[in-house]
Amino acid sequence: MKNMLSEEVVALKPSGIRKFFDIVSEMKDAISLGVGEPDFDTPWFIRDEGIYSLEKGRTFYTSNAGLKELKMEICTYLHRKYQCNYHYADEVIVTVGGSEAIDIGLRAVINPGDEVLIPQPSYVSYEPCAIMAGAKPVIINLKNENQFRLTPEELEEKITEHTKVLILPFPNNPTGAIMEREDLEKIAKICIEKDILVMSDEIYSELSYNKPHVSIASLPGMKERTILINGFSKAYAMTGWRLGYACGPVEIIRQMTKIHQFAIMCAPTTSQYAAVEALRHGDEAVAEMREAYNQRRRFVMNAFKEMGLSCFEPFGAFYAFPCIKEFGMTSDEFATRFLKEYKVAVVPGTAFGDCGEGFLRISYAYSIDNLRKALGRMAEFVDKLRKEKA
Amino acid sequence: MKNMLSEEVVALKPSGIRKFFDIVSEMKDAISLGVGEPDFDTPWFIRDEGIYSLEKGRTFYTSNAGLKELKMEICTYLHRKYQCNYHYADEVIVTVGGSEAIDIGLRAVINPGDEVLIPQPSYVSYEPCAIMAGAKPVIINLKNENQFRLTPEELEEKITEHTKVLILPFPNNPTGAIMEREDLEKIAKICIEKDILVMSDEIYSELSYNKPHVSIASLPGMKERTILINGFSKAYAMTGWRLGYACGPVEIIRQMTKIHQFAIMCAPTTSQYAAVEALRHGDEAVAEMREAYNQRRRFVMNAFKEMGLSCFEPFGAFYAFPCIKEFGMTSDEFATRFLKEYKVAVVPGTAFGDCGEGFLRISYAYSIDNLRKALGRMAEFVDKLRKEKA
Repeated sequence: MKNMLSEEVVALKPSGIRKFFDIVSEMKDAISLGVGEPDFDTPWFIRDEGIYSLEKGRTFYTSNAGLKELKMEICTYLHRKYQCNYHYADEVIVTVGGSEAIDIGLRAVINPGDEVLIPQPSYVSYEPCAIMAGAKPVIINLKNENQFRLTPEELEEKITEHTKVLILPFPNNPTGAIMEREDLEKIAKICIEKDILVMSDEIYSELSYNKPHVSIASLPGMKERTILINGFSKAYAMTGWRLGYACGPVEIIRQMTKIHQFAIMCAPTTSQYAAVEALRHGDEAVAEMREAYNQRRRFVMNAFKEMGLSCFEPFGAFYAFPCIKEFGMTSDEFATRFLKEYKVAVVPGTAFGDCGEGFLRISYAYSIDNLRKALGRMAEFVDKLRKEKA
Repeated sequence: MKNMLSEEVVALKPSGIRKFFDIVSEMKDAISLGVGEPDFDTPWFIRDEGIYSLEKGRTFYTSNAGLKELKMEICTYLHRKYQCNYHYADEVIVTVGGSEAIDIGLRAVINPGDEVLIPQPSYVSYEPCAIMAGAKPVIINLKNENQFRLTPEELEEKITEHTKVLILPFPNNPTGAIMEREDLEKIAKICIEKDILVMSDEIYSELSYNKPHVSIASLPGMKERTILINGFSKAYAMTGWRLGYACGPVEIIRQMTKIHQFAIMCAPTTSQYAAVEALRHGDEAVAEMREAYNQRRRFVMNAFKEMGLSCFEPFGAFYAFPCIKEFGMTSDEFATRFLKEYKVAVVPGTAFGDCGEGFLRISYAYSIDNLRKALGRMAEFVDKLRKEKA
């Protein structure tokens, strides 16, 4: 048969995250610090609302852009937490996780030849989604010495007349980096001057440990050029519910809704009802989980310190991104040997961009017990490597 | 700001189905025969499994392509019902409804310049999804005198050297047409000769009233060139759960899984567990609903006969597609006046392609009581129109 496949899609590399987990699942006593997912079950009161909604027989489509009550709660929440002002009727769309929002957000704005700026290390979907939308991805390599924040200089250096969108992935997966208000103000100024759209992926916004998260959409002049993406997976431990949302200028949301209508129809109904409850009564549960992550974060940073491993302090998400350059091996080699010899799975930094070489993503969305065991093994491995080198 | 939007997406017309429902929802005493959705709640035993799954705390991601148990049950089901042979490990992907399967199926196979053959009238997503995937949609106008089946002559006439995919949407929304084994054999022969992929959307396969549905994927030589799409929305009254699947050649499923991984991650977890139960124990519930639809189908056809309205007998899905050409007005005019003067919403045939002009889509996924009331009003309206003309 003639070529059956899209050459563009064939050329996309599959995500480098999963590679190690097929091995882990076959290996006895292996511990994973790899998956980017809360270890908590969804809080009971949210599940209870999902159950109630199934009992009531709410098993039908919702309107394409989502339940009115949910869109209203999203706007209330974004205003209450981040001083963002959106109108529920035409500036919000409820999506299948943040993932769908990234995909249809890019499809809604990209024309052939447009460039999308993607700071890396960052989540694995941005680059393939940009390519599939017909854009040219332009990578910005973030630096350890800047705590993996995006600097104005790094941004300006990559802007051309074709630059259409800047993806802003903070708090960051995999580095745990955040952008504070002053950082964002400088970025916003450039985006306004150069007429650039921002896709701000704030899925980890509730997991900020230093000070409250700031949304770039709340800065003057930015709402009209920002697609704000957020969702329920990380803050409310609702990954399996597949529920996120995007807010933005009416015209962009309208085009996103059109794609969503054709390609998805609507987000899952049970999840939408449960999410209303999450937004109405979830603050306490979120605060408890955040405190648990923060405790683990300190535990992990302390363990790295004890083993003499260099790691900038991450203030967001639930990842640490230690540097392993001293061992003179690639991230992939380190992760492969660590899994084989000590049965602990971590993700090589290169899964999140070439500039992740020399780093590892360690997820601390695991119990302290698990972390203690895994980091104990890491200390032994690091010791062994230093002895090998000596 | 410079042009923010994708010109290709802006140029897509939004679905013509929803237009009337915004009016309906504001109108007292209005009846809708418009929505393409079962009126049944999801059967209790399926909801119960969803509830159990939430109680057990199964709120995490599943693997990208879907739960192993579900993929296995899908293969068992397709073999048991339609003699299709798929292997769960690499020939199945679980999607967010049939909708996502259409979108990512086309994205996985289309290269620039490829043509996609779309028989119309048909579901509103095929043409926009083909365009967004970069294909040139080529419309095949199906004919009332063929009972809206696709004939080999109609197919051959539109094939060029650029033809890549034929979309095969049977049982059909909006016409209720089906394709029987002999019809499919002729189409299959041509697709093999001309080396064409088939995307067979069989979402209404369980709603066949004449004889059991036949899948083109079960015909010799077709499995290797067919993307079979099906799901839970229609057969199991599970629209809000957003769960479907695609089966096909390993290489295509692999590329679809890559897109799905980046753009969606996985289908909703609760829905996946519930769907396992639907496939294991759903036959009786499906048969009951099918019998109820069949009763309504006969009721509707009888009502058309009594009002002297021409309508070919639909043997699939839950739609009738009566011809209103005798009244000398467009489908849109008819539907608009009918809603305004008699408060009944139906969908103009043109919502499903230009060749739907002169027809209406009447959904009979409504109670007999509702149908009786609505069709009573239709008889009055038809009478009035005939008097106006006389």
